[in-house]
Amino acid sequence: MNTGITDYPFMQTFVSVDCVVLGFDKNRLNVLLVQRNTLTPDGKDLKLPGSLIYQREDTDEAAHRVLNELTGIKKMTLKQFKSFTSPQRTANPDDVAWLEIAYHNKIDRLITIAYLSLCKINRKLNIASKYKTVDWRPVDDLPQMPFDHNQIVNTALKEIRNWVENEPAILFELLPTKFTAAELRRLYEAVYDKRYDVRNFHKKMAGMDYIVPLDEKQEGVSHRAARFYKFDRILYNKRKTKI
Amino acid sequence: MNTGITDYPFMQTFVSVDCVVLGFDKNRLNVLLVQRNTLTPDGKDLKLPGSLIYQREDTDEAAHRVLNELTGIKKMTLKQFKSFTSPQRTANPDDVAWLEIAYHNKIDRLITIAYLSLCKINRKLNIASKYKTVDWRPVDDLPQMPFDHNQIVNTALKEIRNWVENEPAILFELLPTKFTAAELRRLYEAVYDKRYDVRNFHKKMAGMDYIVPLDEKQEGVSHRAARFYKFDRILYNKRKTKI
Repeated sequence: MNTGITDYPFMQTFVSVDCVVLGFDKNRLNVLLVQRNTLTPDGKDLKLPGSLIYQREDTDEAAHRVLNELTGIKKMTLKQFKSFTSPQRTANPDDVAWLEIAYHNKIDRLITIAYLSLCKINRKLNIASKYKTVDWRPVDDLPQMPFDHNQIVNTALKEIRNWVENEPAILFELLPTKFTAAELRRLYEAVYDKRYDVRNFHKKMAGMDYIVPLDEKQEGVSHRAARFYKFDRILYNKRKTKI
Repeated sequence: MNTGITDYPFMQTFVSVDCVVLGFDKNRLNVLLVQRNTLTPDGKDLKLPGSLIYQREDTDEAAHRVLNELTGIKKMTLKQFKSFTSPQRTANPDDVAWLEIAYHNKIDRLITIAYLSLCKINRKLNIASKYKTVDWRPVDDLPQMPFDHNQIVNTALKEIRNWVENEPAILFELLPTKFTAAELRRLYEAVYDKRYDVRNFHKKMAGMDYIVPLDEKQEGVSHRAARFYKFDRILYNKRKTKI
């Protein structure tokens, strides 16, 4: 039945997952990059965390595996958002050389399924043995990365807006448990890449009844101490089922 | 450099595209299914149109190729919406037998990138030689299809709502050039799977200034003749840039 691949222009390819993990440093969105131990000819070592998929796992499982290695969290919130499938992904011989050293296989084509995930930026990360460093880098100041990883991050930054609109709760995975209105506003500004008028933003917040003011205020700040708020998941879920 | 695939649990796999093409029959959403010429042991012949990808094309190009074969349209509006990557996709030996006959290759794993597209239901379709039939089937009355094609359609029906919310213009690809308010309402009802109150729907329509009433009404109908409307893309694009 197998008459040989050469008869037909169909082909097998390697499939990977790449994860865009976003964090928020009270000012800007950051993305988690890893530096592989493997030497690369061109020194473009920083890349998105990712992996080829194993024989018996789907891409969701592969993405959870990659993130679990980094964060220790078994099941991080994640969202598959796009496949990147251009044959040009492996156009750079340096990228292919690195792949073949890292994976001990001849790889001439590689498609990747990209995932988006969110993580508190002060979370302690595991530097698994296969990485030299794991680092947060601001999304507006990224190095040139291998393959199409820069394009993947840019697509992720559009995708997160859709995600927030369908599921506002995910934003709170980027904030500390207690946060001020200004912190939440700056997060919205970072996600939507625009300014919010302070007064209008307070009105917007008032409409989100699952954001609950606490009896607690900032301490030891030079300006007027701001009130803390928390995200109330029970109220959020109630509201969600009403819609 | 290539130490052999067996040393490592990574694997190569075939990659396909599958296209969920939706049409609207003034009442229900329908999906375009094809029946392959190839005999299959279990008779589950109706499936989504799709193809393995070629060596030198990305999945967008493969999806355009598949749809072009069916509709003759070079570049249909389409949207990649999800990859389906479970190793269980090829759990049914009948599905695998059909694949191997159709593609002359031994195939033990196959991931697919699913695309969503829209087509006027009265469009003349090409029955390419590789299909026995090409048929519209209502989405709420689909046959059991091979692989995870039923699941792919169900996911597409959720995805189309996101698409409409981001880009309302795509809805009009499902309607004739002239349509009545009732036709548009029934399309919204089909897409959102809920009833709209007639009066509220008229208010909603009034807010969409790119839906332009014509001086023309239905003819030869037993009920009161309804006014026709058209979609005005120029007004739509103006409105879009304002947002």
